[in-house]
Amino acid sequence: MSILIRGGTVVNADRAFRADVLTDGDKVVAVGPNLEAPAGARVIDAGGQYVMPGGIDPHTHMNLPFMGTVTQDDFFTGTAAGLAGGNTTIIDFVIPNPQQNLIEAYQQWRGWAQKAAGDYTFHVAITWWDDTVHRDMGILVRDHGVNSFKHFMAYKNAIMADDETLVKSFRRALELGAIPTVHAENGELVYQLQQDLLKRGLTGPSSHPLSRPPMVEAEAANRAIAIAGVLGTPVYIVHVSCAESLEAITRARANGQRVYGEALAGHLIVDDSVYASPDFDFAAGHVMSPPFRSKHHQDALWHGLQGGNLHTTATDHCTFCAEQKAAGKNDFTKIPNGCAGVEDRMAVIWDAGVNTGRLTPSEFVKVTSANAAQIFNIYPRKGVVAVGADADIVVWDPEGQRTISAKTQHNKGGFNVFEGRTVKGIPTTTVAAGKVVWHGGQLMAVEGAGRHIDRPAFAPVSAK
Amino acid sequence: MSILIRGGTVVNADRAFRADVLTDGDKVVAVGPNLEAPAGARVIDAGGQYVMPGGIDPHTHMNLPFMGTVTQDDFFTGTAAGLAGGNTTIIDFVIPNPQQNLIEAYQQWRGWAQKAAGDYTFHVAITWWDDTVHRDMGILVRDHGVNSFKHFMAYKNAIMADDETLVKSFRRALELGAIPTVHAENGELVYQLQQDLLKRGLTGPSSHPLSRPPMVEAEAANRAIAIAGVLGTPVYIVHVSCAESLEAITRARANGQRVYGEALAGHLIVDDSVYASPDFDFAAGHVMSPPFRSKHHQDALWHGLQGGNLHTTATDHCTFCAEQKAAGKNDFTKIPNGCAGVEDRMAVIWDAGVNTGRLTPSEFVKVTSANAAQIFNIYPRKGVVAVGADADIVVWDPEGQRTISAKTQHNKGGFNVFEGRTVKGIPTTTVAAGKVVWHGGQLMAVEGAGRHIDRPAFAPVSAK
Amino acid sequence: MSILIRGGTVVNADRAFRADVLTDGDKVVAVGPNLEAPAGARVIDAGGQYVMPGGIDPHTHMNLPFMGTVTQDDFFTGTAAGLAGGNTTIIDFVIPNPQQNLIEAYQQWRGWAQKAAGDYTFHVAITWWDDTVHRDMGILVRDHGVNSFKHFMAYKNAIMADDETLVKSFRRALELGAIPTVHAENGELVYQLQQDLLKRGLTGPSSHPLSRPPMVEAEAANRAIAIAGVLGTPVYIVHVSCAESLEAITRARANGQRVYGEALAGHLIVDDSVYASPDFDFAAGHVMSPPFRSKHHQDALWHGLQGGNLHTTATDHCTFCAEQKAAGKNDFTKIPNGCAGVEDRMAVIWDAGVNTGRLTPSEFVKVTSANAAQIFNIYPRKGVVAVGADADIVVWDPEGQRTISAKTQHNKGGFNVFEGRTVKGIPTTTVAAGKVVWHGGQLMAVEGAGRHIDRPAFAPVSAK
Amino acid sequence: MSILIRGGTVVNADRAFRADVLTDGDKVVAVGPNLEAPAGARVIDAGGQYVMPGGIDPHTHMNLPFMGTVTQDDFFTGTAAGLAGGNTTIIDFVIPNPQQNLIEAYQQWRGWAQKAAGDYTFHVAITWWDDTVHRDMGILVRDHGVNSFKHFMAYKNAIMADDETLVKSFRRALELGAIPTVHAENGELVYQLQQDLLKRGLTGPSSHPLSRPPMVEAEAANRAIAIAGVLGTPVYIVHVSCAESLEAITRARANGQRVYGEALAGHLIVDDSVYASPDFDFAAGHVMSPPFRSKHHQDALWHGLQGGNLHTTATDHCTFCAEQKAAGKNDFTKIPNGCAGVEDRMAVIWDAGVNTGRLTPSEFVKVTSANAAQIFNIYPRKGVVAVGADADIVVWDPEGQRTISAKTQHNKGGFNVFEGRTVKGIPTTTVAAGKVVWHGGQLMAVEGAGRHIDRPAFAPVSAK
Repeated sequence: MSILIRGGTVVNADRAFRADVLTDGDKVVAVGPNLEAPAGARVIDAGGQYVMPGGIDPHTHMNLPFMGTVTQDDFFTGTAAGLAGGNTTIIDFVIPNPQQNLIEAYQQWRGWAQKAAGDYTFHVAITWWDDTVHRDMGILVRDHGVNSFKHFMAYKNAIMADDETLVKSFRRALELGAIPTVHAENGELVYQLQQDLLKRGLTGPSSHPLSRPPMVEAEAANRAIAIAGVLGTPVYIVHVSCAESLEAITRARANGQRVYGEALAGHLIVDDSVYASPDFDFAAGHVMSPPFRSKHHQDALWHGLQGGNLHTTATDHCTFCAEQKAAGKNDFTKIPNGCAGVEDRMAVIWDAGVNTGRLTPSEFVKVTSANAAQIFNIYPRKGVVAVGADADIVVWDPEGQRTISAKTQHNKGGFNVFEGRTVKGIPTTTVAAGKVVWHGGQLMAVEGAGRHIDRPAFAPVSAK
Repeated sequence: MSILIRGGTVVNADRAFRADVLTDGDKVVAVGPNLEAPAGARVIDAGGQYVMPGGIDPHTHMNLPFMGTVTQDDFFTGTAAGLAGGNTTIIDFVIPNPQQNLIEAYQQWRGWAQKAAGDYTFHVAITWWDDTVHRDMGILVRDHGVNSFKHFMAYKNAIMADDETLVKSFRRALELGAIPTVHAENGELVYQLQQDLLKRGLTGPSSHPLSRPPMVEAEAANRAIAIAGVLGTPVYIVHVSCAESLEAITRARANGQRVYGEALAGHLIVDDSVYASPDFDFAAGHVMSPPFRSKHHQDALWHGLQGGNLHTTATDHCTFCAEQKAAGKNDFTKIPNGCAGVEDRMAVIWDAGVNTGRLTPSEFVKVTSANAAQIFNIYPRKGVVAVGADADIVVWDPEGQRTISAKTQHNKGGFNVFEGRTVKGIPTTTVAAGKVVWHGGQLMAVEGAGRHIDRPAFAPVSAK
Repeated sequence: MSILIRGGTVVNADRAFRADVLTDGDKVVAVGPNLEAPAGARVIDAGGQYVMPGGIDPHTHMNLPFMGTVTQDDFFTGTAAGLAGGNTTIIDFVIPNPQQNLIEAYQQWRGWAQKAAGDYTFHVAITWWDDTVHRDMGILVRDHGVNSFKHFMAYKNAIMADDETLVKSFRRALELGAIPTVHAENGELVYQLQQDLLKRGLTGPSSHPLSRPPMVEAEAANRAIAIAGVLGTPVYIVHVSCAESLEAITRARANGQRVYGEALAGHLIVDDSVYASPDFDFAAGHVMSPPFRSKHHQDALWHGLQGGNLHTTATDHCTFCAEQKAAGKNDFTKIPNGCAGVEDRMAVIWDAGVNTGRLTPSEFVKVTSANAAQIFNIYPRKGVVAVGADADIVVWDPEGQRTISAKTQHNKGGFNVFEGRTVKGIPTTTVAAGKVVWHGGQLMAVEGAGRHIDRPAFAPVSAK
Repeated sequence: MSILIRGGTVVNADRAFRADVLTDGDKVVAVGPNLEAPAGARVIDAGGQYVMPGGIDPHTHMNLPFMGTVTQDDFFTGTAAGLAGGNTTIIDFVIPNPQQNLIEAYQQWRGWAQKAAGDYTFHVAITWWDDTVHRDMGILVRDHGVNSFKHFMAYKNAIMADDETLVKSFRRALELGAIPTVHAENGELVYQLQQDLLKRGLTGPSSHPLSRPPMVEAEAANRAIAIAGVLGTPVYIVHVSCAESLEAITRARANGQRVYGEALAGHLIVDDSVYASPDFDFAAGHVMSPPFRSKHHQDALWHGLQGGNLHTTATDHCTFCAEQKAAGKNDFTKIPNGCAGVEDRMAVIWDAGVNTGRLTPSEFVKVTSANAAQIFNIYPRKGVVAVGADADIVVWDPEGQRTISAKTQHNKGGFNVFEGRTVKGIPTTTVAAGKVVWHGGQLMAVEGAGRHIDRPAFAPVSAK
């Protein structure tokens, strides 16, 4: 079946231009002026609208077992919510328990992901180290389309990777042509600050940001970058939330090092005043790590995106409902960390980024899709509207408005950190793998329609 | 007439891929695997080679009247030399004398450029200010395809623009949708240091770099960026030669400001030891401003290109012969400033950039072609190998070698700052406007074949 | 006559220690434990208090003719107010009109200063340039105890020094052993922004800060530092008000350059929200240049003092009454620029600096007295409590409190930017030149008791 | 017995002035013009010379058991060599073996130090952690005059402190009023790089610097500073050797954090070309950690001292003879790390610092004596020539010259990293504890004359 998107302005990372877009099967087959609709083609009128590559959220956690519970969104509800927001691909995480065989964990996640409505692919976390881990990293890269490995520098006594693991895993990734990524927070300091706060009786959610100040994050970012720099591997820092971490990235990039940074939609939009709320559900609903930061840091993150020191935007989509969050009622360290976002990322970034003049539409495409596709090596299959690319397309109405609310959202969890925000600039149609999955406010997500996207290794890089 | 470039790897800024390229007339008409050669098409075998967009040198001075003389290369010899090196477009400069009518100067340069063998377009310098300048900037943008204006912060008592001129011209450019560019050196300090050195009897070429230390350049770069930042206009810094200027750019970019930086091939490759030569002709042959710098600064410039804080590479091609240089035999301030480079830029940057692992081939395309095309708004007509683009293409043999020498160069002036350097990676074929102009070591440049390229205004930008 | 200050803790820049202090005539003659009171000596009980060198305000404008009017405080009322606040020395400014003979201007100010109640000395401004200025700078240094020259980079069409003047004056200062100081704001940008705001009908005081954004200040600071760096002279930046200027200083210092920075008490304490007031008198009462800044910048200034990148605190004391300020009722550019402060500087810096843990008492002495004495070469006559030093001493009660108000202040002008602020830490006794001039809340200032303090040249420095 | 030092220029950190200095017993009892010699006093003619506080070397290792051997210099030969060079106090290190009781180790070192000829005091290293360590830190501070604790971030599988130990020890130090110090190198990276080099057969001393690149040091410095910053404790970084570590310090200081940095005389003077020597003994003789660096880093260190971002100079005096160094003949990781310096520090820093105009004589006193005294809380007993201070004085002839050589040095080890360097500026007399110990080229050191200097705790600081 064909779809002809007619009359819009195609926006790619390198430019915007008037053109029609024709798909056939799951591919784009023509991009140009005045295309003719083949027999039977569905015609979408994109007049006055932008036609952009579908969003890629490089950081989600669907169906995640974490802190003794499991996230509300499974791969179906989570990816479906993404489709409603113009997001057609997610990169989720396989997180083995320490000592768990990597391949086993990977298969577990692949199983959970069968029901996805949109395309998906996986980072695999390195949470421990022995020779089998070394071996299995190779198997994952060669045989399973994995080209990125995640490292948690926080979560002491759980999945935290120490320097030895970082060094060994980064080296292994380099030799395999995979890119290491890190959650950068110094777990030892977080732990110490948590214990201090609890001892002082400061057990509520307002202690959460106090236990994870910017310097804790910046230290870890700087350390990961140093290790990568010494070993000669590129590195990707997930959810950069503060000016100081960004400075570490900016410094390294200014020294010619290949470092990439990711900002979360939440960190760009929501500030840390939320933790002062006396309403536990509200404050706890915002508990994620790193925490929301002050306006100063938000400005810095936008500057990072504008100046090319941050490259992608993501959500760390990880939904827990109020009952789950209540596990930390008397101890903020027990509040499951995580917030939703996959449905709203594109809209809030357009609204706060493009409408304000911070980003051009092409830069919006870069930070919501193209850069993630390039960094994780699925470009130009993803990340561009071009002949031969996957037919993952979002038609974007820059004048359309929507007020975000947990009441109307498609993802689960019953909470939305952007609650009440009215955004201007919304997806009117989402095409995923050549199928219209969102149109006229109707979500037509199909369980199981999503495909695993193999990501080939980069050529192994010899360190300089 | 058609050309089919067969069997190569097309390299664009966003990716490299195996494809054939077909041109018809002056355009690319197909890019894809296994293209068939139309009847009468010339077939170029690009097996084992890269097929890249022709180089754009955004900074040349052909036929320039300067310091009482005129450069050796006119628009024919200069652009022809470029074609031999894989460079298909130049952006040259109209430099009105103070008080000279801008349109008049512009027409003068357009006249000189009629004989060009390759495509060309012009930055126009703002060397003085009154209401007619304000008016004529508008005429140039609207009617003459100019979208960039140059400002010399050096050359006191000649073409130096003071802060008042900078402020007024930057504002005017902003409202017209044009981008201001600057030669950043504090002319007052240069003048003072020159006088000091002459007074102390230090009249030789080795005084040249002493009169233009890095801080002199960095001050001006920082000032231009501040003015642009306050007024809300983007700005482009030409020939960034030192770490400190680059830091000013990097800082501004990290703060989200749209600042672009250009590095010269010479500054990337040649160091300041040349000025210590007792041979006047040799030392004077290297006199240009800013001067060559030490290795420390060269490393910094490469890092700038790698980290995205510098965007283009150029040459400031400006050829004077030994007789002309001799005007400063007894007074280094009278040595005509300028060196050649348009023929060698692509090769030396490939050799020192790609062969060393500093740049990927796609990054090479960015910094030699695509970024200049985007910044100066002639993309995707230039800067990419794609259907619809101008048929300006260079076929690049990464294994080919050449030893650079004034003896074998095509440009005039009889001197080469890269003399004796053997580069690996050379153009085997250059196609310009759909014609083979360089192939098998033969230059087939045609006087007058070059075209003026109109550069449309950007949408006028409202300051944030 | 002798004074014995008994039982206190002497605080000098290098340490604090328990000791009594004895003066005789205008000098300190003993510092040690258990000193005996000579016959006839007045004994001051300093139990539980700190005994510190009297404050030096290196930036005041008494009796200043400016913007068509004259400040409210003359040298008597201004210095007397200082004594009430523990400030025993001021460094004021001779500001010749352009074309005015320097010596003539200097004599004029010396005449006005005859009535001072506290010690004073003068920076001389270089507001224009010709050979007589060059000559007169020498005369001032050799014969008149001047070792610092001030340069206004703002106030276009009035006293603004262009780059040529800066370069020539800095060089002359270097050869004389004097230190150049600068008011760093780019006058051209200020002028342009002012005109823009007025054209847009934004004529009220809230436009004042908009016409002088941080980048305008930072540009000028960076330029002055670059000029000083190239010439090899130290430089002192007055009233650093923003993070960006401070960064320019910090960068230069990190590169080993001798750059000094001054923060105003007002900039450290008061933020820019004052300009939003609908009350013209209130908002205009705060109009000074650079303007007050946001909290972010205040934090930065404190960090500058803590980290040793800022060295002195001053006030720019320059009092205009409401009637005078009203000259700018319909045009903010006509509001006389200036605020008071000499009386409150020590107390607000103690309160916001020492009480908060930002500064130790010794660091407080550094930034209120010792550093200014060293930088302007009147140490150890001033700036330390030691045998042989001038008997300029403040006895400081860290528990004493006072609520600052224009109603109770000693200086004139009828306005106080710290209005309503209750400070903890106040002077209980001020001794100036061996006389008790403030004690028990009584001011005993004597018109004409102040002396001009000659400041000898530094050894002329050869640039590296 | 009294000593009268007559006719010199006393140089303290705050100023230089003409004065005689009189000692009585082990104290300075008068500083002033034209002092009379008491009966029996020895008179030293300091005409044309500087009279400065004796040097304090805050980083030495006498009698150190390390890497399976013991340093050549014991406390007598090491401190005696210091006296010959104008150094009157050392701060050495107690380094417990992991699991060794702190008090026991401390007593061991105190025993070894009995024979010292000059004053000494100890940092105590925290090489492991349990509750006894926590307890014993308190005992050392309260009862044994220890106010600083050292942490090795390098030396994996030996004395390396992991993040948990750093966090716990820093907190403990803060609550005790002691200052943590760190050897900043990432031990994990060093280990990995060492293994790599050995695997590649690169076993010679030229591999030593390759195993410890600047980023390895900067990472650790940044981490220690971040931990200190989060916990609110000051921190002191020993032997800062590279620009990147210094930048971490500079950044933190610019943010108002109390961070102190130490540079070694060796790192300031000697560059890394020494490791390229084919002479094993020569190359191995320079093996210390961090290694010597390139000129770029040396310039940076000098800038750090000039701008106040580095505070002290030391030597890390740690002498191994050629036989000991030969243990690493076939494996550079087995070469005992360490070089001498305590005898030459003052002279090489004067020569390269004061003679070049980088430092004033007062700044020389700051970085060789006063700052160390202040940071480690033995000021003004040490670090200043003033009434009441210890009679530790060096008379310095700025015109005197000496050629440094292992052949003529007083310390043991038979090697000197400054071999052959002729310095201008040498000590002609050293007075230690009121005794002339070096005069006319004669060393009169007395075994056991040195005293342990108790260093009192600072007031415990509450974190901000």
